[in-house]
Amino acid sequence: MLLDQRRLPAEEVELRCPGSAAVADAIRSLAVRGAPAIGIAAAMGYALAARLGEDLDLAAETLLAARPTAVNLPHAIAEMRRAGRDPEALAQRAVALHREEVDRCVAMGEHALALFRPGARVLTHCNTGALATGGHGTALGAIRSAHERGLVDHVWVDETRPLLQGSRLTAWELERDGIGSTVVVDAAAGALMARGAVDLVLVGADRIAANGDVANKIGTYGLAVLAAHHRIPFAVVAPTSTVDAATARGDGIPVEERAGEELGTRFPARNPAFDVTPAALVSAIATELGLHRPPYRFDEAFA
Amino acid sequence: MLLDQRRLPAEEVELRCPGSAAVADAIRSLAVRGAPAIGIAAAMGYALAARLGEDLDLAAETLLAARPTAVNLPHAIAEMRRAGRDPEALAQRAVALHREEVDRCVAMGEHALALFRPGARVLTHCNTGALATGGHGTALGAIRSAHERGLVDHVWVDETRPLLQGSRLTAWELERDGIGSTVVVDAAAGALMARGAVDLVLVGADRIAANGDVANKIGTYGLAVLAAHHRIPFAVVAPTSTVDAATARGDGIPVEERAGEELGTRFPARNPAFDVTPAALVSAIATELGLHRPPYRFDEAFA
Repeated sequence: MLLDQRRLPAEEVELRCPGSAAVADAIRSLAVRGAPAIGIAAAMGYALAARLGEDLDLAAETLLAARPTAVNLPHAIAEMRRAGRDPEALAQRAVALHREEVDRCVAMGEHALALFRPGARVLTHCNTGALATGGHGTALGAIRSAHERGLVDHVWVDETRPLLQGSRLTAWELERDGIGSTVVVDAAAGALMARGAVDLVLVGADRIAANGDVANKIGTYGLAVLAAHHRIPFAVVAPTSTVDAATARGDGIPVEERAGEELGTRFPARNPAFDVTPAALVSAIATELGLHRPPYRFDEAFA
Repeated sequence: MLLDQRRLPAEEVELRCPGSAAVADAIRSLAVRGAPAIGIAAAMGYALAARLGEDLDLAAETLLAARPTAVNLPHAIAEMRRAGRDPEALAQRAVALHREEVDRCVAMGEHALALFRPGARVLTHCNTGALATGGHGTALGAIRSAHERGLVDHVWVDETRPLLQGSRLTAWELERDGIGSTVVVDAAAGALMARGAVDLVLVGADRIAANGDVANKIGTYGLAVLAAHHRIPFAVVAPTSTVDAATARGDGIPVEERAGEELGTRFPARNPAFDVTPAALVSAIATELGLHRPPYRFDEAFA
């Protein structure tokens, strides 16, 4: 059972997945999205396949093919495979993986606190909250943790075109938490920074290369360049399950290109879902292990 | 009679304005938009007021209040006032002003040719075509002129949130002209530049201060910062009717804040319609008088 994020904020509808193929569909169609949540959903889908007596290798393949960028998906499937083939053991492993991701978020939030000064006005992009992670959130979780400490004055929410994860999901989460926030078009970030209205840019990640290059929702790279231009800290909050030690640099990360139709125009359109921000533009990366500063070394020796 | 740009590209509908107040409404509601086109519409509205025997001072006041940022509006009203109060003379002046704006566009397009290298891949923002200027266009007019010379390989069209002037209007104009183009979300500009897919960023302007600071559609400033970061030329194409010699710097330009509802979210939203790009980030400005390079001096002595 998944909360269907495509229907938010208008309706809270649960989507029932009768098998692992339906879970893969839910990931592909963004009923569930956000790198950690994709990993959790894939683990649940794999456990479901075992319970239903599906072909586990085929289930893994179908789930792995659902979306290419978030490394949490292959990481989760690899962990599930290591847990064997017993349905009950796999169900327990999937539930544990969910719990671990939420625990990581809470730990990240603590490490990220050092990024906030009292009265911080934070700009964020896409949705990195409980919806994206199975609970608490990465960047939005850190904002939540900092808000509990009285450190957050306001959150600027990029609407995040084309699918509006910011104005649909992040604004919804922030309202439920009583954190003051304002939605703006993605292209307004520069003007906000120029008028001194942003103290910190905080985003999540879909995949972090060993050198600290960060793949994240399209527009993240532009925010990083703007933040550097205005000498505003630009930081990433992501669990180690989002770190891809096997990929040396950002140019090795596969960037999903989605259908141009998502832009809603009848003219030719391109729709890259992610971009890659070079490590040189990233002030800090918070994982559950700590607050990392450049130069980043997320290679095999890390974690 | 105005082509109602709010209905494009789905339908081509003419909007009949029975008096100057209706013209002001059309400007306010973006049935007609684009700095030069706003000036032309205001001139026509003033001439219409004279023909209908309306109070001319009240008509001027209503038209001037329609939108604050494009200086073409007060410039056009000032020109009409200098033409006296005779309805026939005013009608002729308004028609001449329209013709002058189109002539300026063609001249600008010639001066801007020097910005294009053969095979240029140009990124543009908002709509600066015939729809925005009464004919030919500013930045889009220059692209048109360069395309006729075989200099343009492709145009990247920012969709331009929240009102999608790029994906609705610019893509529509480019398709009619047979110029190859692709719509992208505004936040994709950085990724396109990073992968070397953009040779030139070309935009129009709503007001240019005496020092060359440029007010234009929200997101323009972000594009200028990104272009500078990637060492891509960022140029502005605008007529002298968009130059405000009386305003020394960009911080003196009034920036319109439109209703947050335009973002289509039910959460709190801010909707600044423009931003200001400092002259230091502008590689060149083409007016009908020539191709200007920094340092810019558009003061009273200019033109």
